[in-house]
Amino acid sequence: MKLIRFGELNKEKPGVQLQDKMYDVSALGEDYNEQFFETGGLGRLEKYVQSHRGILRELPAGVRLGSPVARPSKIVCIGLNYADHAKETGAALPPEPVVFFKSTTALVGPFDNIIIPKNSVKTDWEVELAVVIGKKASYVEAADALGYVAGYCLHNDVSEREFQLERNGTWDKGKGCDTFAPIGPFMATPDELGDINNLRLWLKLNGETMQDGNTSNFIFNVPFLISYVSQFMTLLPGDIISTGTPAGVGLGMNPQVYLKPGDVVELGIEGLGVAKQKLVAYAAH
Amino acid sequence: MKLIRFGELNKEKPGVQLQDKMYDVSALGEDYNEQFFETGGLGRLEKYVQSHRGILRELPAGVRLGSPVARPSKIVCIGLNYADHAKETGAALPPEPVVFFKSTTALVGPFDNIIIPKNSVKTDWEVELAVVIGKKASYVEAADALGYVAGYCLHNDVSEREFQLERNGTWDKGKGCDTFAPIGPFMATPDELGDINNLRLWLKLNGETMQDGNTSNFIFNVPFLISYVSQFMTLLPGDIISTGTPAGVGLGMNPQVYLKPGDVVELGIEGLGVAKQKLVAYAAH
Repeated sequence: MKLIRFGELNKEKPGVQLQDKMYDVSALGEDYNEQFFETGGLGRLEKYVQSHRGILRELPAGVRLGSPVARPSKIVCIGLNYADHAKETGAALPPEPVVFFKSTTALVGPFDNIIIPKNSVKTDWEVELAVVIGKKASYVEAADALGYVAGYCLHNDVSEREFQLERNGTWDKGKGCDTFAPIGPFMATPDELGDINNLRLWLKLNGETMQDGNTSNFIFNVPFLISYVSQFMTLLPGDIISTGTPAGVGLGMNPQVYLKPGDVVELGIEGLGVAKQKLVAYAAH
Repeated sequence: MKLIRFGELNKEKPGVQLQDKMYDVSALGEDYNEQFFETGGLGRLEKYVQSHRGILRELPAGVRLGSPVARPSKIVCIGLNYADHAKETGAALPPEPVVFFKSTTALVGPFDNIIIPKNSVKTDWEVELAVVIGKKASYVEAADALGYVAGYCLHNDVSEREFQLERNGTWDKGKGCDTFAPIGPFMATPDELGDINNLRLWLKLNGETMQDGNTSNFIFNVPFLISYVSQFMTLLPGDIISTGTPAGVGLGMNPQVYLKPGDVVELGIEGLGVAKQKLVAYAAH
């Protein structure tokens, strides 16, 4: 299945994508959140869709898409998980995963604008494969880890490099600004995808290809990452682990390239659709 | 007012503490969460308590206390915010605040056991003043920041130093293990406290005083911290900012001292009560 959420920001309703059309399933009376995943919601949704196939309301073209999953308890990110990206940033290959958090207030839809924060001069892009956790995970073995996955999404791990690297502290300052986590267009359940450790992922800036990688180049693969993070904290249903970005970010260019108002980033992962975001300057409300 | 939450873990009900007695206010039909703070819940609670004074059900002695606030969208922590603590850890004085996150799955009550994680050899204590945010805060000025506070709590920012400092990555790995955020016994609204930048805070390990500091020694005070964090991410009602710990943690001792099963930590902040936690070894469920 491909899960979507549509409608106004923070008031999204659940839907599904079947072939290339999107349908409203809000009559199911659920949102794609911790409780949904924890209580077998994917099974209920599948039955609902099967029994209502042909009578589901199709969504109009141009409907806003939100993040395909509701605000989770946490967005855990993995840094430097592709050798080519570690090299371009001047970092050594990590002996074990780098872990940091994104504030969940950063979550937006796949076609929403990205706001360049006040005082930002180094807003950058990162196409990433995001894993959505399906059940509570604590001290999980890598061999069992894929059993804890609800699905996968496309994620732009937007990053402010000055906040992240030059402002005295951990990376968290530069990762959680509002709109810095556009996710979607949809969450695909694992059966929709082939080998998740062999997916092409790419990102274009204003039409020009900047990133073109493959998850086969992961330093630490998805089962290892789920197991690893679960040694340090309990992962809840609906939580997101974003698995790192391949080479081609602005920080790694010579000279460095950062996002400015009017820029457009387009990104995709094989089997997980395409997203597109326009950059806008911060404006007080 | 002093807000408490009581009952079974993850099923806590709301209550209040009046003088030294605790009362059930679950009939109000609310929990102390994002929606409560966002929609003027503190005002509703105050009216409810006033109109029901004398007929509220008193809680039995020995009732379990949970965190006085429900699981927030995030727990933001400030590192190295007392000069004496920065010095004992061998760190330079920070030119601006160090910011990191605790996984919100770490949240427990003030008298719950602290679980020493699997493979942990350096579990440590940190008494801290925690600030609870009362309304959505983005790019707040320090001069206005106290208007965004719902209240204050006592917090033990439990830390695994090997996970935090020696496992390749940001501090987040060593801060968010299950039970690493005992908060309470209560949240005090600002009117219950004097000058929050002049509160004594202390921690004892097995009866011996290890930390004895005062928030007057903050490098960055509460209004500055709220303003600062709000430049990097939006703070939501119910979110927690923990303001750092004074000298006297196990990491700073010579030789270093770490927590072991059976140890008891007792901690307090002037006006914010006393908490007490026993250390236990991790055991698979």
